[in-house]
Amino acid sequence: MTTTTTLRSKHLLGIANLEPDEIDLIIQTATAMKEVGTRSVKKVPAMRGRTVINLFFEASTRTRMSFELAEKRLSADTLGMTTAGSSVSKGETLADTARTLEAMSPDMIVMRHASSGAPHQLARICKGSIVNAGDGLHEHPTQALLDALTMVEHKGRLAGLRVAIVGDLLHSRVLRSNALLLTRMGADVRACGPATLIPPGLDRLGVTVTTKMDAAIEGADVVMMLRVQHERMHGLFLPSVREYFALFGLTPQRMERAAPDAIVMHPGPMNRGVEIDSEVADGPWSVILDQVSNGVATRMAVLYLLSGGDDTTARP
Amino acid sequence: MTTTTTLRSKHLLGIANLEPDEIDLIIQTATAMKEVGTRSVKKVPAMRGRTVINLFFEASTRTRMSFELAEKRLSADTLGMTTAGSSVSKGETLADTARTLEAMSPDMIVMRHASSGAPHQLARICKGSIVNAGDGLHEHPTQALLDALTMVEHKGRLAGLRVAIVGDLLHSRVLRSNALLLTRMGADVRACGPATLIPPGLDRLGVTVTTKMDAAIEGADVVMMLRVQHERMHGLFLPSVREYFALFGLTPQRMERAAPDAIVMHPGPMNRGVEIDSEVADGPWSVILDQVSNGVATRMAVLYLLSGGDDTTARP
Amino acid sequence: MTTTTTLRSKHLLGIANLEPDEIDLIIQTATAMKEVGTRSVKKVPAMRGRTVINLFFEASTRTRMSFELAEKRLSADTLGMTTAGSSVSKGETLADTARTLEAMSPDMIVMRHASSGAPHQLARICKGSIVNAGDGLHEHPTQALLDALTMVEHKGRLAGLRVAIVGDLLHSRVLRSNALLLTRMGADVRACGPATLIPPGLDRLGVTVTTKMDAAIEGADVVMMLRVQHERMHGLFLPSVREYFALFGLTPQRMERAAPDAIVMHPGPMNRGVEIDSEVADGPWSVILDQVSNGVATRMAVLYLLSGGDDTTARP
Repeated sequence: MTTTTTLRSKHLLGIANLEPDEIDLIIQTATAMKEVGTRSVKKVPAMRGRTVINLFFEASTRTRMSFELAEKRLSADTLGMTTAGSSVSKGETLADTARTLEAMSPDMIVMRHASSGAPHQLARICKGSIVNAGDGLHEHPTQALLDALTMVEHKGRLAGLRVAIVGDLLHSRVLRSNALLLTRMGADVRACGPATLIPPGLDRLGVTVTTKMDAAIEGADVVMMLRVQHERMHGLFLPSVREYFALFGLTPQRMERAAPDAIVMHPGPMNRGVEIDSEVADGPWSVILDQVSNGVATRMAVLYLLSGGDDTTARP
Repeated sequence: MTTTTTLRSKHLLGIANLEPDEIDLIIQTATAMKEVGTRSVKKVPAMRGRTVINLFFEASTRTRMSFELAEKRLSADTLGMTTAGSSVSKGETLADTARTLEAMSPDMIVMRHASSGAPHQLARICKGSIVNAGDGLHEHPTQALLDALTMVEHKGRLAGLRVAIVGDLLHSRVLRSNALLLTRMGADVRACGPATLIPPGLDRLGVTVTTKMDAAIEGADVVMMLRVQHERMHGLFLPSVREYFALFGLTPQRMERAAPDAIVMHPGPMNRGVEIDSEVADGPWSVILDQVSNGVATRMAVLYLLSGGDDTTARP
Repeated sequence: MTTTTTLRSKHLLGIANLEPDEIDLIIQTATAMKEVGTRSVKKVPAMRGRTVINLFFEASTRTRMSFELAEKRLSADTLGMTTAGSSVSKGETLADTARTLEAMSPDMIVMRHASSGAPHQLARICKGSIVNAGDGLHEHPTQALLDALTMVEHKGRLAGLRVAIVGDLLHSRVLRSNALLLTRMGADVRACGPATLIPPGLDRLGVTVTTKMDAAIEGADVVMMLRVQHERMHGLFLPSVREYFALFGLTPQRMERAAPDAIVMHPGPMNRGVEIDSEVADGPWSVILDQVSNGVATRMAVLYLLSGGDDTTARP
């Protein structure tokens, strides 16, 4: 179904900027990249001599490691910069940091930042490609792409899939990127969470919104659980852990409402006993570890395509 | 004397799991690896394209750097994960961290952890090789192996060697791994420390236990000093620094009781003036820096053998 | 003008140890290295299989990244060691740390330390090359070298250049290394700052010292602004930010006193509105980002020359 062999932008800032044929291209390329991870020499020369800076202003070992592994399997040279002890902590503006990094002529910058739009600011300043690894409450495009790859692998398609996304909808860039991707690819998306954690205007994304988990999960082909952050469990937003689990926790009983061959997803790290029961997390429905594997392959695909993946000698 | 050319397990969890011929094999291979460190191009292609994750839940620059250097000299791709800011600090269980890492298909995980048995748990979950870089009070096998290499280099043998190990016996995985290795290889091991720092059952390891330093050191071919941790110097376990040094500190005078050509070892970092006098640390007996050099070579040997060191084209 | 093709010392500890022909050699080599950063494969094999340890006892993302990038573009294997969680924090002496690192046989150690002379101590112990990446209030030689490259690029020469260096003269190793280099190469250097921030004996470096910014800047070909550290803004040393900016801040109005084609430099990170006005930082005079680019090339040149850059097959 792919009608393009390249991405139109040199950046990956969000799902919002991707056309369906580009999403197909990334999924197909990621499928090819998965094979590299099974080799004894897990390496292709696609990005040899290219410099990638991993600029993580928010701690995230999981995503950082997934990107770094992808970069190394593509033979890139990688450099890490975190906020602690950096010029950022010395009061430098983001624009000055971006200009400084740009002056070192990296080929690519992978950026995570607590402010929505920070990667877009970088993209206006830098000549290299910018990859958004999560910006505030805005987008986390590689997560949605690896989730899409996982759904395609297990369900054979995205169009027509019934996907329930359950949890803290307000603070989730994972929800936002998934909703954008899935609705664009023709899936039927239902978002479910406590009323205090539903962002205004969520339905404008083409998503059905509900506070009833049973309704959300009914007949779902995919149940995607969002991480509940403990620091939001106290006070305004959420009831107790116990009550949250009773209302929104995913249990084997609840999975009976889903489609017979439904799959369960979670972006990790999981809070067992809070948003998900261990019987589900470790049960036959779970494709959570496939998501992790697909994360490396998807990031390899994105970096490969952005770095001009048309060099046939470097193809995986 | 080697009767095997491979290790029987794909993991190195402890000395307890190694047969004498395997210990011999590692020492011989490490001897060959030492030569690589003297080249201008300090690199062999043995692990090219293999992924090694260094998972350090306890800070240890020295051991981490030694492993990382070994990995790079074997041409592996290395990834570091420390606890700070990781999903572990977000409350993820060790089993979930292990499964997540496993899903990224690393070839090897080098792990240090404050809990005894943590690497064993990893080994039950992961397909790749697990190397224990120190687990709680349990084992630190590569330390004992590099110590053995150092003894063989200076003394020509392990069997029959009289080895005194002196210091905090209670909190020392270095003691434990050394006692297991040395008794297995036929050495005569005497352990010496304050009565409050002798673990119950230590003599069951085949070790002679004493609180008298002069007795321990008498005629010793090897005197191995253990690091005394300052935080244990206060309160229950230890008298003052001054008293500790008087009773258990290694001085030139005390070395007169040892064998004429005795060597002095220390796993580092040293507390000069606490457990060891500078005249000894820097004197003719000291092979402490040989231990550091041998650490890199021993870790290269272990990683090489675990990654299936039978590829003759990749031999050093 | 170069009369040498190699550096006389195997270390770069400070500008104080460099002859003019060596400074010329580094500048010329750095100019050649700049070309590598513009390639699609940003890599030369000059240091393949060499081990470089980056030993940063003071946080400095900018300098650390610049060195690490230089090392990777030269194909070296790099290892990082920072103080946090290291044996240094466990009370090990600098000499013991140096001996331990030396035992791992690195080819080069790049060191930043809060104590003046720390790299010199390392150089007495280690066989490998030591590169000073900033030691206390003493020197920061690669900064002065990259500044010199930037001046040569824009002004065609160093001899006879009028250079004003403005700011906190007391706490600046950048000033010290620049003053040494520029006076040695025949430039006319004027240093300007608040009276409380002028170190005694500064004029003995061959520098004209003043507290009047207008006098310093008059007819200057180069205006180099030094970073003002916020923690020194309170209390003894400095008046308020507002008063500091009024007396020593670089504005477009002040630049009218400089030579018509004057350039503005800053080692970064900048405090906009404190020592420099944004109109100047981003204006036509500014070569601040050239300094960053030249930093990578200059460090590549230094590492290349120190590692015996006479291997013609490895030349950039």
